[in-house]
Amino acid sequence: MVAHMTVNAPFADPKSLNEPVEETTRFAPKFGADGLITAVATDAETGQILMLAHMNAEALAKTIKTGEAWYWSRSRGELWRKGGTSGHVQRVVEIRTDCDQDAVELVVEQTGPACHTGRRSCFYRTVTSAGDLKIRD
Amino acid sequence: MVAHMTVNAPFADPKSLNEPVEETTRFAPKFGADGLITAVATDAETGQILMLAHMNAEALAKTIKTGEAWYWSRSRGELWRKGGTSGHVQRVVEIRTDCDQDAVELVVEQTGPACHTGRRSCFYRTVTSAGDLKIRD
Repeated sequence: MVAHMTVNAPFADPKSLNEPVEETTRFAPKFGADGLITAVATDAETGQILMLAHMNAEALAKTIKTGEAWYWSRSRGELWRKGGTSGHVQRVVEIRTDCDQDAVELVVEQTGPACHTGRRSCFYRTVTSAGDLKIRD
Repeated sequence: MVAHMTVNAPFADPKSLNEPVEETTRFAPKFGADGLITAVATDAETGQILMLAHMNAEALAKTIKTGEAWYWSRSRGELWRKGGTSGHVQRVVEIRTDCDQDAVELVVEQTGPACHTGRRSCFYRTVTSAGDLKIRD
């Protein structure tokens, strides 16, 4: 009989932790009901947020194994190597997780722009006091 | 008869945009099926990611109106003013959104630690090459 697979495989199941999730040194990422975890890519050089995307367990495992960022595209419903088409790859310098392990930060060396619009970061607009958007760069 | 309310009220509905979401200067945040949008708080001084949380339309509207960060607690199922109990409030200097307007970045002046563990940032652990976690600070 095959062992029961969780959405977390090949990672530890958060429910298997005996210690508080905040203090453990065991990586047990908490994927949502949709099997995804939020990933924020930040620029290794400037610390600036480049983009926010989602990963399933396979994308996260591939990112760790290859040292390049892989995500899960919710719109296309497929695994996606960042820069696979555009060449704008992300070399992962460090992966961090937060207190409840339901998000990861990828510190990356970004080749070219991170945003599909050609801008360095996807966060290129600011909400004005009037509630509109202003383009920053 | 009451006008049809969307999950987006009081914000514009993304479906009402006549121009591409990437280029519009209209703020039409795209809340998920759960009515939430991802919010990343970054330190106005250092640019460092402090925490990642979620907002419903009410939390986002209150954040814009009051200039202090409000979130939606998924675990408690309630609106939550950051620092309301701890005093570790976030004064919002700037709000940014990304190309597809399904995430916001809050650039904040953080009073005290952002993390409930007492650490400045929630992202205080790094994934090691062996797949464990190492505490950074």
